[in-house]
Amino acid sequence: MPFFERHVFVCTNERAPGHPKGCCSAKDSEAIREALKAASKKRLGKSVRVNTAGCLDQCEHGVTIVVYPEAVWYGFVTMADVEEIVESHLVKGQPVERLRLPESCINTAMCPHRK
Amino acid sequence: MPFFERHVFVCTNERAPGHPKGCCSAKDSEAIREALKAASKKRLGKSVRVNTAGCLDQCEHGVTIVVYPEAVWYGFVTMADVEEIVESHLVKGQPVERLRLPESCINTAMCPHRK
Repeated sequence: MPFFERHVFVCTNERAPGHPKGCCSAKDSEAIREALKAASKKRLGKSVRVNTAGCLDQCEHGVTIVVYPEAVWYGFVTMADVEEIVESHLVKGQPVERLRLPESCINTAMCPHRK
Repeated sequence: MPFFERHVFVCTNERAPGHPKGCCSAKDSEAIREALKAASKKRLGKSVRVNTAGCLDQCEHGVTIVVYPEAVWYGFVTMADVEEIVESHLVKGQPVERLRLPESCINTAMCPHRK
């Protein structure tokens, strides 16, 4: 299996303190990414890669993660969600519905979280 | 069109000078990403997003880019390739074959570029 079965990108963008948009970095995204990477590696070895990414432009949606190739977007992810993302989505192929950002929140000028 | 039509990740990982693996950052990946982002935005607006990514683990393959959802991997990308990637792949949907990394080079312990 030469390609990655799944490729996970965790936004770790950092903005200056007080920036009105906030940033994922201030919400512990680097630690969440490290935990996700470790848990994924333990369960799935090299078939899944968990990368950091620059700003995914979902600043109103808490710590944001996108999983390819299926393009599943998660928002407001916390450390408490890591295990479920790995076991349900990465291992069993079942996205964690309660964390998914709806289509109407992605790449749009206005959504319930954007003011 | 709420989701991104394509999501491009450019490795901008930086290692200390002299590291045996080298890194994409030392090969101008940040400038390549900026050029790709600007050219893509000009032609396609917000339908395509061009992000930085942490190490994509293709250190032997020059500046590395992966395009999702189709999971097309490019290696040894230079500034001279930016226009073609945008026009051929992102606009017309035709990957730039001469830049593609073959399956046998991705996520493998050994390939012609790995020593």
